[in-house]
Amino acid sequence: MAAVLMLRGSARLLYKHRKVHAASIAMVCSRAMASKTPVGFIGLGNMGNPMAKNLVKHGYPVVAYDVFPEACKEFQDSGAQVMDSPADVAERADRIITMLPSSPNAVEVYTGANGILKKVKKGSLLIDSSTIDPAVSKELAKAVEKMGAVFMDAPVSGGVGAARAGNLTFMVGGVEQEFDAARELLTCMGSNVIYCGEVGTGQAAKICNNMLLAISMIGTAEAMNLGIRLGLDPKLLAKILNMSSGRCWSSDTYNPVPGVMEGVPSANNYQGGFGTTLMAKDLGLAQITATNTKTPVPLGSLAHQIYRMMCAKGYALKDFSAVFQFLREEENL
Amino acid sequence: MAAVLMLRGSARLLYKHRKVHAASIAMVCSRAMASKTPVGFIGLGNMGNPMAKNLVKHGYPVVAYDVFPEACKEFQDSGAQVMDSPADVAERADRIITMLPSSPNAVEVYTGANGILKKVKKGSLLIDSSTIDPAVSKELAKAVEKMGAVFMDAPVSGGVGAARAGNLTFMVGGVEQEFDAARELLTCMGSNVIYCGEVGTGQAAKICNNMLLAISMIGTAEAMNLGIRLGLDPKLLAKILNMSSGRCWSSDTYNPVPGVMEGVPSANNYQGGFGTTLMAKDLGLAQITATNTKTPVPLGSLAHQIYRMMCAKGYALKDFSAVFQFLREEENL
Amino acid sequence: MAAVLMLRGSARLLYKHRKVHAASIAMVCSRAMASKTPVGFIGLGNMGNPMAKNLVKHGYPVVAYDVFPEACKEFQDSGAQVMDSPADVAERADRIITMLPSSPNAVEVYTGANGILKKVKKGSLLIDSSTIDPAVSKELAKAVEKMGAVFMDAPVSGGVGAARAGNLTFMVGGVEQEFDAARELLTCMGSNVIYCGEVGTGQAAKICNNMLLAISMIGTAEAMNLGIRLGLDPKLLAKILNMSSGRCWSSDTYNPVPGVMEGVPSANNYQGGFGTTLMAKDLGLAQITATNTKTPVPLGSLAHQIYRMMCAKGYALKDFSAVFQFLREEENL
Amino acid sequence: MAAVLMLRGSARLLYKHRKVHAASIAMVCSRAMASKTPVGFIGLGNMGNPMAKNLVKHGYPVVAYDVFPEACKEFQDSGAQVMDSPADVAERADRIITMLPSSPNAVEVYTGANGILKKVKKGSLLIDSSTIDPAVSKELAKAVEKMGAVFMDAPVSGGVGAARAGNLTFMVGGVEQEFDAARELLTCMGSNVIYCGEVGTGQAAKICNNMLLAISMIGTAEAMNLGIRLGLDPKLLAKILNMSSGRCWSSDTYNPVPGVMEGVPSANNYQGGFGTTLMAKDLGLAQITATNTKTPVPLGSLAHQIYRMMCAKGYALKDFSAVFQFLREEENL
Repeated sequence: MAAVLMLRGSARLLYKHRKVHAASIAMVCSRAMASKTPVGFIGLGNMGNPMAKNLVKHGYPVVAYDVFPEACKEFQDSGAQVMDSPADVAERADRIITMLPSSPNAVEVYTGANGILKKVKKGSLLIDSSTIDPAVSKELAKAVEKMGAVFMDAPVSGGVGAARAGNLTFMVGGVEQEFDAARELLTCMGSNVIYCGEVGTGQAAKICNNMLLAISMIGTAEAMNLGIRLGLDPKLLAKILNMSSGRCWSSDTYNPVPGVMEGVPSANNYQGGFGTTLMAKDLGLAQITATNTKTPVPLGSLAHQIYRMMCAKGYALKDFSAVFQFLREEENL
Repeated sequence: MAAVLMLRGSARLLYKHRKVHAASIAMVCSRAMASKTPVGFIGLGNMGNPMAKNLVKHGYPVVAYDVFPEACKEFQDSGAQVMDSPADVAERADRIITMLPSSPNAVEVYTGANGILKKVKKGSLLIDSSTIDPAVSKELAKAVEKMGAVFMDAPVSGGVGAARAGNLTFMVGGVEQEFDAARELLTCMGSNVIYCGEVGTGQAAKICNNMLLAISMIGTAEAMNLGIRLGLDPKLLAKILNMSSGRCWSSDTYNPVPGVMEGVPSANNYQGGFGTTLMAKDLGLAQITATNTKTPVPLGSLAHQIYRMMCAKGYALKDFSAVFQFLREEENL
Repeated sequence: MAAVLMLRGSARLLYKHRKVHAASIAMVCSRAMASKTPVGFIGLGNMGNPMAKNLVKHGYPVVAYDVFPEACKEFQDSGAQVMDSPADVAERADRIITMLPSSPNAVEVYTGANGILKKVKKGSLLIDSSTIDPAVSKELAKAVEKMGAVFMDAPVSGGVGAARAGNLTFMVGGVEQEFDAARELLTCMGSNVIYCGEVGTGQAAKICNNMLLAISMIGTAEAMNLGIRLGLDPKLLAKILNMSSGRCWSSDTYNPVPGVMEGVPSANNYQGGFGTTLMAKDLGLAQITATNTKTPVPLGSLAHQIYRMMCAKGYALKDFSAVFQFLREEENL
Repeated sequence: MAAVLMLRGSARLLYKHRKVHAASIAMVCSRAMASKTPVGFIGLGNMGNPMAKNLVKHGYPVVAYDVFPEACKEFQDSGAQVMDSPADVAERADRIITMLPSSPNAVEVYTGANGILKKVKKGSLLIDSSTIDPAVSKELAKAVEKMGAVFMDAPVSGGVGAARAGNLTFMVGGVEQEFDAARELLTCMGSNVIYCGEVGTGQAAKICNNMLLAISMIGTAEAMNLGIRLGLDPKLLAKILNMSSGRCWSSDTYNPVPGVMEGVPSANNYQGGFGTTLMAKDLGLAQITATNTKTPVPLGSLAHQIYRMMCAKGYALKDFSAVFQFLREEENL
């Protein structure tokens, strides 16, 4: 722990040169030294609820907020403290994690009338685990920095199961000197915490990974479907792909064809897993980000459209590997 | 060897019930028992030449043919025997391997005026290693079967380097009982010989793998390019993808971004490797096959178009991972 | 009529220099002079049946054939003569029209064991109105020319209704000097007969038109759907598009949005019109043709995939403008 | 003029019931009655400059602003009055037209530190002719409405030439009762002023039209290119398409193939016209809008990617019909 404190001490020195007021540094130090002071948590949905509970399990007092009273009540019943607004959370805790469904929610929680920034303490560490447009993360970081606090984006990979089991992966963007402080909290909820670079790069890494995931999943579904139509046995084809240059996570770990693997959504009528509607959302973010940076992403763009069409055709809540089923259905005249 | 002969013996019995004449069986048996009798090889191009030479190295007398006299001469100079036509090859050898650039060439070599079938011996084993439409393979197989001989499709994976080194991968389709006889020859030229199923499934496996490869390569290029534009370090991003669900052969073994890996075409200005024009050809086959079987392959189809556009933009002879370069170029006003 | 004969006479002279035997010319002349001699018709399906009947109405004795006995019987009952094979038709008629569902059928009817070419008379005029790969048309033309006869491709635009009403459009490819002879027959079945160029260009024109049609139909559906979601009245939006640069046949004549126009399939639950499965077939031909000529057609290719997916999703028999319905369906969680 | 005033009078009555304060109405009436009072114009770029000059030509005193001093100077030299900020323009004029390159510029000009809203008079009419995200238009409208003023979006169709000639098309969204007041000004700059519906629908109409335009332009280029490769004469093919169901504005009015039409960019090496980079921008807006409304636009999305790739390949400043050239280039090995 001493090592961490020292590292953080030197981090503070570096940070000082970036014109943070002395008072802010003092606050940060006190935050760092009393690691079991309350941690704020905003957004108690399917993901946020088990994440916050894992913080509690690790001995952190959690002060929480959610816009839905039922979500708050359920959390309160489990012994945690619930506040009336994000601002009130910020008044009580100098480390806050937010887990929200979309950019507008994040903007509201941080900069709204009762938002975190209304009462944030100088030197606070604000970690946003929502998956949002990295450009919005950067704007939030600027607004947070103006208040003398620190913002990091730390979106997660892994679903509700991983949130419960505490083995999410966090991709973290922000000032490198704050990474250790963030990791201290995030390791309570995840098994993998990766530093990606400046603010917004956590989002960027997640978006890029999920775009490539969607592309290779659809590609795997197309290749498997075509091969089956051409007379290949699905298990044999999967085996051939997996020992060849077509190999990918979607073919060797999460194969979308029923009967090829066990323990994956395709073996269970595409229930559980990562919903098509969530994949469509992430691909939408990739699309917007690519558009704004003038980056051509032809397959990512078409993958987005395919998941959008699947949503319109009743697949919204099925696992995203159901694209195999979407493509395979037979033409019946 | 005895085991193989026995297996082949029982295979013959099975085959007999499929109404092959006794004479044909006798021929097959003599073929099998004298494994160092001459082997025919038709198509001495960039791939065929080193493949045929590997047969010679393994002690097989090779009788060869190519439509280009220079190709024949070069091969003859190395001590092999050259014939005047595919028919003449078939007269001399009862095991023949063909390695041709496209479907029409294969049709001509087998069924043309001086084609193999003009003089093929009953019971001969004809192995086509060309990459062609599996529907054409099936037609050739029927024509060959009518002559009392056996046809297998055995397209290869791996380029000129693998052909020279003798470590190609063969994907083999055809009557399972003949697989051992085919493997005996193919292992002289490749390190991996996979049985895929009935005639045409070798082609199918190759086409499906290469379609998925093209899709995941373009996807990797898009994801890496987008991530870099969003501020991520390319090596770090590759590392993140490779430990996440976006992982694929194109990201972890053949990364298209210069500076991420060594010993791959992206480290050498996209020279060597698997040419864009060859990938476009294979995607064209996938497209035609999918069209004829009414199989939707939206990403495979767009990947085909992208490689087609790259060919038109000067990338024809660059490695197919150059799609990263094709997509990244900056807009300069 | 004299003018036509003279024209055809001079056409013959030109043709003579292209090394057609004198005997063949004599035959052609006799064909031309006796215009109400029997006309052959092969393929009495949904389109062929009413087309052949229109020839009868115009006073031509028709000798017909179809592979399905019921189709023959129905036609015979209406007073026409039915033969036992395409060869028999060719024996009786020196002008033959073929209307077949796909390339393999056409190849069989022309070059099969009982095909037209078995008994075709020198100088005969063979017009194929099937929609097939132009490369196949060219092959058929070569085979026909070898027999001293003339082949033209003349695919139609317009559906069963137009076939009945006799106002199809024919796009004709072949030797220009024969165009008048072809037109004489085709005008009995169509209101528009367009000469496109050498053999295969009739198919090419049809394929190109239908590919552009599919693209602009899907584009219109996307634009209308997006506009409606953004609050625009569909009729107003159609009006704006139609006076602007987005105007196209699909927006101003065949609008896919129910309620915008009357008398079109979208006003009648997408019944009637041009079936999605037929559009998918034509786009498949465009795809194969583009692949074989290495022509990039990115939107044509994606349009093909979309119509293929629609077929797999129950739209096969609906009019192709139903792509609006396919895209608009709402995401219901 | 009396008719217009009466109409506007009754419009006012309707508007009154929507709870606009009496003072605001009084202002509006005075604005309406003195039609040659100064008109503000913000954004004097390639489009804004000639538009503002057309207002001057029609006798309107113009008070203008541009962020670039040179743009202001050039305009001042032509006799108009130039202000120091958007706020100053708003102080002097109660009718203001804005013509800005993108959403962030528009947000800054309206809501920035020296933005219009700092000094806007109650009852002012603010018309934004920029092409931006309709969601941003709606946000601006809300902010403007809070200040007791009126906002309309009125993006234009037609380029610099049309701006000079005063024959732009305006697509107008906003409160219908204000449409006449807007039209009075817009007709000085355009020959076509179309009311589209509530705020944002002007943008929506433009975005939808341009998306369909891009799709049918690329489709025309693909169809023409494929037809030419198949042996069709370009002029003949264009003629056939234009009398068939493939007909569209891009084929019959703005054909992308050199030699088919005169007086279009394809006849002049794709100079002039509507730049590829501008089309890419509009398609980006369509993409973002579709993403945010969860509307599938597969072809629109791919069209966006194609224009994005063209920008990266040196076509940024060429007319968007240059997609024909982009696609046609030959594969040279």
